[in-house]
Amino acid sequence: MPDKIPQDSIGLVVPETIKFDEPLELACGRTLVDYQLVIETYGKLNEEKNNAVLICHALSGNHHAAGYHSPADWKPGWWDNYIGPGKPIDTDRFFVVCPNNLGGCHGSTGPSSINPETEKVWGITFPPLRARDWVNSQAKLADKLNIKKWAAVIGGSLGGMQAMRWALEFPDRIDHAIVIASAMKLSAQNIAFNEMARNAIKSDPDFQNGNFVEKNTQPRNGLALARMIGHVTYLSDEQMGSKFGRSISAGSFQQGQYNPVEFEVESYLRHQGDAFSGSFDANSYLLMTRVLDYFDLAREYDDDPVKAFSVAECDFLIISFLSDWRFSSTRSEEIVSALIDAKKNVSYAAIQSNLGHDAFLLKNENYEKTLATYMNRILTKNRRERQTDTEKGKTS
Amino acid sequence: MPDKIPQDSIGLVVPETIKFDEPLELACGRTLVDYQLVIETYGKLNEEKNNAVLICHALSGNHHAAGYHSPADWKPGWWDNYIGPGKPIDTDRFFVVCPNNLGGCHGSTGPSSINPETEKVWGITFPPLRARDWVNSQAKLADKLNIKKWAAVIGGSLGGMQAMRWALEFPDRIDHAIVIASAMKLSAQNIAFNEMARNAIKSDPDFQNGNFVEKNTQPRNGLALARMIGHVTYLSDEQMGSKFGRSISAGSFQQGQYNPVEFEVESYLRHQGDAFSGSFDANSYLLMTRVLDYFDLAREYDDDPVKAFSVAECDFLIISFLSDWRFSSTRSEEIVSALIDAKKNVSYAAIQSNLGHDAFLLKNENYEKTLATYMNRILTKNRRERQTDTEKGKTS
Repeated sequence: MPDKIPQDSIGLVVPETIKFDEPLELACGRTLVDYQLVIETYGKLNEEKNNAVLICHALSGNHHAAGYHSPADWKPGWWDNYIGPGKPIDTDRFFVVCPNNLGGCHGSTGPSSINPETEKVWGITFPPLRARDWVNSQAKLADKLNIKKWAAVIGGSLGGMQAMRWALEFPDRIDHAIVIASAMKLSAQNIAFNEMARNAIKSDPDFQNGNFVEKNTQPRNGLALARMIGHVTYLSDEQMGSKFGRSISAGSFQQGQYNPVEFEVESYLRHQGDAFSGSFDANSYLLMTRVLDYFDLAREYDDDPVKAFSVAECDFLIISFLSDWRFSSTRSEEIVSALIDAKKNVSYAAIQSNLGHDAFLLKNENYEKTLATYMNRILTKNRRERQTDTEKGKTS
Repeated sequence: MPDKIPQDSIGLVVPETIKFDEPLELACGRTLVDYQLVIETYGKLNEEKNNAVLICHALSGNHHAAGYHSPADWKPGWWDNYIGPGKPIDTDRFFVVCPNNLGGCHGSTGPSSINPETEKVWGITFPPLRARDWVNSQAKLADKLNIKKWAAVIGGSLGGMQAMRWALEFPDRIDHAIVIASAMKLSAQNIAFNEMARNAIKSDPDFQNGNFVEKNTQPRNGLALARMIGHVTYLSDEQMGSKFGRSISAGSFQQGQYNPVEFEVESYLRHQGDAFSGSFDANSYLLMTRVLDYFDLAREYDDDPVKAFSVAECDFLIISFLSDWRFSSTRSEEIVSALIDAKKNVSYAAIQSNLGHDAFLLKNENYEKTLATYMNRILTKNRRERQTDTEKGKTS
């Protein structure tokens, strides 16, 4: 392993493509005749097959959660801080599975794939999805991997919504749900930000009504602006203040003409937006923000979260970050309160951080300890159950 | 007066155009050889000329602060709630002046005016402005109107910045500064939102690098999106929740295709954006957001707000709204604290409201009482001074 890959990293990892030949019925009423999921796995499934952990990614994430694809990579997978040997989600002990969700743009079937019926790129005609479609496809994935029950389903933000949906859709296939910086549904303000992002994409003439691949173009400006709009809501005001203050990156406020970029925060956001627009499919972004908007945990349970969670059989860990205003601690506390009323086992940690919503991806000692302790508890529980089984075996 | 105009309104009002033939030197180093301001005035200047009040408008405001231009108008001026006979800014007692600022697009010289040197529309080549340029032009306006000293300079948001700048630039020409929902400078987050709005405008191909008037087009999509981005930051999360919740305005979340608009909040924002983009000049919007970004009260005072305010001679009323996250109460409290340290007379009210930044425009009983009481105090002070003068006259 090359020197530059850190010692505590899982190291080089290789994605796999899992093909599904049976059709998948979607919540919208349409059907995918076949599909594929690109996944990464870290660690090994144990004999008892009770150490499998599913990582659900958020809006702009993908299957590459940890490690490096090449020694030349300048950064590891998106959750490398928390997944790896000896890390909270310990790959020496857990078998970690992270798929790119359906509708994504990193190899799993999505808007940039070929529609087998038309033999053209799906583009805007790809069926709209809901979180339950992801959960269903992840269950089929678990079947293929011989995983009857996940030790834990874990996710931040939109990923946390999938973890909650897992607990309701497949109560007997999930032992623990870890829901980080998430919510049972979006607020109107959240929807508004998503709507602006979509508007930015659709207003770009290169969007071509969603047929940009066919027209051999990319709505890069629109997608960059969409990402900027999202990005600002992931950061806290305080963090932006300390990171950028009001430093002027070029030119002077007294100049007689407009400068293209003057404040550092502008330059940072443009960079973020441009980098993103070069690596993400605009139709996938539209689709994923729609999944967020439509997610409503209790919609099919008479709008009663307690009734919804009553279906669950797993234990829950809920984590929030105090400076997160996109999915504030209040949203997490609503989840906790519903879980308590539904008489479920729930642990809750509100983590001190000034990093806003992004905190769920970043290094933080208390967050790390909380996750590590909880993951340890899962193993202890497994061990205890194994012992009980062995004892039962002895006495039978 | 037609029935439909409310009894407590100032009624029909007519804007005036004031032309200035002398050049105006701008903070950027360039000079406007001549210019005009469109203004509205309400009430009468008294004999002592000590009842004049200047209203400074915010980002998207203009000279039409109160009353109606026509009986057919479906809404009055933007601050009609607070300006009128018997209202807090009582037009029976005050002479109220509200100009459209330089750089605006409602009749005052700005990007959509003709550059006398080229005889073409200024467009993007209009000089960038700073708040002090507005204050300077407002001082020239005061000269024309025979107003030596304003009883009060009043403004919300960007208007409040002008009121503060007045106190520093012309300390002997202002008796009271009323600064509402404002800040001594923007936060990085604020700048980021403005940058996204500008990006939305500039990314619209109809922007034509700012020469859209010449090319006979309008970047309406971009301007609408810019307005949407701004608008969301003027509202509170709570208010959006209670106004729109997550109601779906059309279609259903189970539909197999994308609907253009599904949530009510989207429909509302699109309407707001579209309405705005039909009535505002994109170059003016760029210019005004830049004034906001560059405003920094203490920049020329060694970044020391206390040093800055030490120059002021007027009294201050500072008002903030508790749910305002664009210009939070903390920003107002920074102003108050600097004023106290500078040993100035300052009153402060943090008003309970769930209407976000927009609260400064909307009806609110406590806000109304605070403003009315303070404005009354100004008149009482004037009367007392007049009495003292009369007594002096008698004894001399």
